[in-house]
Amino acid sequence: MIATKSSPIDQLCAQLDEIVLIDPHSHINPHAAASKNLGDILGYHYFTELAHSAGMPREVIEAPGITAKEKVGRIVEGLAHLDNTIQVKWLIELCERFFGFQDDRLTPDNWEALYDHSEKLMSAPDWEQTVLQKSQLEAVFLTNDFDDPLTGFDTKKYIPCLRTDDLVFHLQKPEVRQRLAKATGFDCATPAKLIHAIGQLFTHFVSHGAKACAISLPPDFEPTPVSHVDAEGPLRAAYAGHVLTTEQSQILSRFVFWTIAEFCSEHHLPFDLMIGVNRRVYESGVYQGQDLFDQRVSLYQYRRLFNAFPRVKFPISVLAHASNMELVSYAWIFPNVIANGHWWYSNIPAFIEPDCRSRLEAIPRNKNIGYYSDMYKLEFGWPKFQMYRRVLAKVLFEDFVVGRHWSEERAVELGRQILRGNVETIFSGAC
Amino acid sequence: MIATKSSPIDQLCAQLDEIVLIDPHSHINPHAAASKNLGDILGYHYFTELAHSAGMPREVIEAPGITAKEKVGRIVEGLAHLDNTIQVKWLIELCERFFGFQDDRLTPDNWEALYDHSEKLMSAPDWEQTVLQKSQLEAVFLTNDFDDPLTGFDTKKYIPCLRTDDLVFHLQKPEVRQRLAKATGFDCATPAKLIHAIGQLFTHFVSHGAKACAISLPPDFEPTPVSHVDAEGPLRAAYAGHVLTTEQSQILSRFVFWTIAEFCSEHHLPFDLMIGVNRRVYESGVYQGQDLFDQRVSLYQYRRLFNAFPRVKFPISVLAHASNMELVSYAWIFPNVIANGHWWYSNIPAFIEPDCRSRLEAIPRNKNIGYYSDMYKLEFGWPKFQMYRRVLAKVLFEDFVVGRHWSEERAVELGRQILRGNVETIFSGAC
Amino acid sequence: MIATKSSPIDQLCAQLDEIVLIDPHSHINPHAAASKNLGDILGYHYFTELAHSAGMPREVIEAPGITAKEKVGRIVEGLAHLDNTIQVKWLIELCERFFGFQDDRLTPDNWEALYDHSEKLMSAPDWEQTVLQKSQLEAVFLTNDFDDPLTGFDTKKYIPCLRTDDLVFHLQKPEVRQRLAKATGFDCATPAKLIHAIGQLFTHFVSHGAKACAISLPPDFEPTPVSHVDAEGPLRAAYAGHVLTTEQSQILSRFVFWTIAEFCSEHHLPFDLMIGVNRRVYESGVYQGQDLFDQRVSLYQYRRLFNAFPRVKFPISVLAHASNMELVSYAWIFPNVIANGHWWYSNIPAFIEPDCRSRLEAIPRNKNIGYYSDMYKLEFGWPKFQMYRRVLAKVLFEDFVVGRHWSEERAVELGRQILRGNVETIFSGAC
Repeated sequence: MIATKSSPIDQLCAQLDEIVLIDPHSHINPHAAASKNLGDILGYHYFTELAHSAGMPREVIEAPGITAKEKVGRIVEGLAHLDNTIQVKWLIELCERFFGFQDDRLTPDNWEALYDHSEKLMSAPDWEQTVLQKSQLEAVFLTNDFDDPLTGFDTKKYIPCLRTDDLVFHLQKPEVRQRLAKATGFDCATPAKLIHAIGQLFTHFVSHGAKACAISLPPDFEPTPVSHVDAEGPLRAAYAGHVLTTEQSQILSRFVFWTIAEFCSEHHLPFDLMIGVNRRVYESGVYQGQDLFDQRVSLYQYRRLFNAFPRVKFPISVLAHASNMELVSYAWIFPNVIANGHWWYSNIPAFIEPDCRSRLEAIPRNKNIGYYSDMYKLEFGWPKFQMYRRVLAKVLFEDFVVGRHWSEERAVELGRQILRGNVETIFSGAC
Repeated sequence: MIATKSSPIDQLCAQLDEIVLIDPHSHINPHAAASKNLGDILGYHYFTELAHSAGMPREVIEAPGITAKEKVGRIVEGLAHLDNTIQVKWLIELCERFFGFQDDRLTPDNWEALYDHSEKLMSAPDWEQTVLQKSQLEAVFLTNDFDDPLTGFDTKKYIPCLRTDDLVFHLQKPEVRQRLAKATGFDCATPAKLIHAIGQLFTHFVSHGAKACAISLPPDFEPTPVSHVDAEGPLRAAYAGHVLTTEQSQILSRFVFWTIAEFCSEHHLPFDLMIGVNRRVYESGVYQGQDLFDQRVSLYQYRRLFNAFPRVKFPISVLAHASNMELVSYAWIFPNVIANGHWWYSNIPAFIEPDCRSRLEAIPRNKNIGYYSDMYKLEFGWPKFQMYRRVLAKVLFEDFVVGRHWSEERAVELGRQILRGNVETIFSGAC
Repeated sequence: MIATKSSPIDQLCAQLDEIVLIDPHSHINPHAAASKNLGDILGYHYFTELAHSAGMPREVIEAPGITAKEKVGRIVEGLAHLDNTIQVKWLIELCERFFGFQDDRLTPDNWEALYDHSEKLMSAPDWEQTVLQKSQLEAVFLTNDFDDPLTGFDTKKYIPCLRTDDLVFHLQKPEVRQRLAKATGFDCATPAKLIHAIGQLFTHFVSHGAKACAISLPPDFEPTPVSHVDAEGPLRAAYAGHVLTTEQSQILSRFVFWTIAEFCSEHHLPFDLMIGVNRRVYESGVYQGQDLFDQRVSLYQYRRLFNAFPRVKFPISVLAHASNMELVSYAWIFPNVIANGHWWYSNIPAFIEPDCRSRLEAIPRNKNIGYYSDMYKLEFGWPKFQMYRRVLAKVLFEDFVVGRHWSEERAVELGRQILRGNVETIFSGAC
């Protein structure tokens, strides 16, 4: 494999590896950013859901009361069925890089030694810093609940992002309304009050350095403006604790969504749209392993939004690989549509490569955010970005260095903009 | 081409070629499994429909009363327009392997010699066995009508599979009801009686070694449970010979489908779903060359089914290439969803390669059935599997040997599981 | 890059480069086919819309009263954000070939010299002929308005094609009705009169050497026959100047469309269908940069049409890459469905390569039109066809020379048919 290692693609990749990154989307908890033990790592939903899919009962994986170590031992039993997956490749590369793991598989025979060894390393007081450094990560975007106080961490390193799913889709849940009331001091039973409260949340987030607003959306969502008059009935019904009809829910969701877009415009906050997920499709799935999608979705559903908010940047992620071509085309035409990373079920090289290729060929280079980690624990940043960098290096080499006779330097410069530069210019901060 | 022949991909492919196969889906008639002459081979719908599409009138191809030899002569006239197609590649490779054919094209000048020579070979009493042996085929799954007596052949070699299209979609046809009555001794005009009759069919099939149940489904089908009360009206109407409304038809189809799934659960039979075909779209097409599809379909339509029958394995084939990504994702999450082969219009290397790549990257390796032949005559097993093996070898080499530094041995082992091992474990037999 | 230049793919491409072409679809104005200055070239919507998408205000690009030179200077300011796009590659290659441009980028520093130099070249009286010759273009299909007199140009070199969008979708606009009345001498307020008038247009076009009829269609269009009785109301309403309901508009569009298909059948004119565009999705976009699409479309919507007009050839272009697989499958089955080029948002190598690959594997070779330029000015023919030829050479080499051991000669012959031969046989002229 020596020969492969020194291929021109590898050489180009090595230059991309040196770029210090800002990760524009993650689910990191800034109060516990790094893992404490292998349980945090093998507990990532990719491993539990794949082990479950391969035949391990949920009761085994999620047995109440088992220790982290017991859980790891159990999931390792299922890894033999998964060693082909790219997700297990993340795991092995992560263990190599951070724990000096040298085997090519994690097995019932070797996991315990790794567990103990890695736990020691992770208990170092500077472990979090070590991981950031070894991962070339300068800063990481968070995905914060709307009522997050945003205190107790360095918001330059862990950049707040206002997650709005609960506001848009779950206002009928009493606990969401209570959290909103607590966060804002407001009863929000009328459109005017709700707008005021949402405005407070924006002020709070912006004053704490938030650089984006984000939401994940089901395939059938179609944003439109909703008048106060039309929103009032559904909103009052929700606050009265009634069960809303499907139509009422839609009206309320659209009203809140449009209101959020208006505040994004006011505060110059980019609005990350993650389009296409159906929640709880597999109800007996493991934790975070229950969501899927319906590929019958179109960015055409968002035309009114893109037209109505020319000042709001919309970095867009699509769940279905089939949606990539629309994303390329809409980003090619709409100044405020930005292609953003490779999300979840699309986040495997088989889909990333053609998606990356088309984005580089047809989207202005300043509107293409190559990748984000989507990680819950810092250790995953490195192997996930590494997967992307390899694909990016391949496309840059084949399409630009060979296909267009670009110098390697020029190709790397394009890579740098995709990987890092655009994150800075697009999420340049609220004002 | 010597250099190409000995490429690392070819070397890896050569190892895959040695794997003895069980073909998990075909339309073989076990009483006449092999071809008798080139007419059986060139009569395969791929050649007649492509010749027709390229300009040959149906009346020429399907003229009543012409001999097999005349028919071959006519279709050969159309092959010049088709020599680029992968289907003609199957034909040439098949003729090379089984008949020693040495030209690179079948033409009006050379076909007759081949016809006569091959007919002699095919008349050998052990021809069927020769084909199986040269094709490395140990056993072949059938697709049997529900009223097939399943006698007169070796069910270890030709494995029965209960095809349920007629029961689910054609119970309004008098001949289907008559066949059902004859097969079960039952008038099935009430839900309870129909269930009982279907149960008898399952008992019959299972007792004759059936290892799967199968059905092909239109893009708009959405399975749901239907109560006896709701099913009774449509069922009685069908048995009274009335023309059903679209809604009645749907209710009846869903009722029968759900009933079959219940029996699959009871008997631990996998239920092959072949999703997405519209029948008789081109009504003037040649025999078996009339069906197409509408890509606007989603596995989301099957969420209730997958949730309701956790014990039933659903090996799923999708007709539209665009559906592959959903199949990968659903198989990644649902333990009972299995990716199954490359069906019909998706069964060309241009689609197989990206589909194979993504399946190997994200589906647990024990839930990925690489390929089935879908053949009507045994001779097609070899060239069709050969097409798949080449693609598989390419993906294994590029993504695993080069991309992940796997040993060739480890890559071949993965290939073996995809090609053979999973067929055995997934269709392990009813109980 | 020397090594790359002389690769086997390049050698094969060099042979394709020598094929003299007939471009089967363009928007050339035969009275001003070539560009007069760089303003005509950089004014192509690809550059204005991408510059706009990358951040340049429309008011800057489309400022009224600016000269061509000022406009070029402005657009060049935006090119730095676009140098990764394939469209800018067209631009650079065009400037190299026709103007001897030697830099690898067009910048604020070098554009003016190019502007002046190229303007001199373009002012030569034989510039148009020079471009055609250097582009290996023998003839170019036009897209003519239905009321085009078709006089004053050589219809052997610039081949008329009847564009029918206005008739099918805009008969409610007074100016369209007036143009129709003027062109035919007819008030068309009844179905019979409208049919008669459309018949006159066909006679006019056919007598002036038209070889095709063409239309672009929105994703939700579904052609069906409409009776005179059903069409009469909507048609009269349109002619009375009423605003039609959505349903009335649909009926009228379907009636006119079906009528046009009938005349195509009568005159043996191929009917180019360009399926899937939504107009004016981005209403603040630059000129011709406002249209997008909804990928939720199926050729299944056209099944009645394909069945009803077996004598009409339908060369079909699809806007969404996801539609390619349906196109391959429908062209594989329906004798009158022909795959036609790579349209607009699908016209980038990332999509052309997989589309080309699948078309060559599964469509009869006589029903596959490789490429058309869609250009507005002659200078774009060369770089656009060049882009396609490179992809075609790659696929021919990899899949046919290597994959099937074809001789290079045989592969080039297939390429010749795809690039040129089929244009002649499919658009063989009306009778």
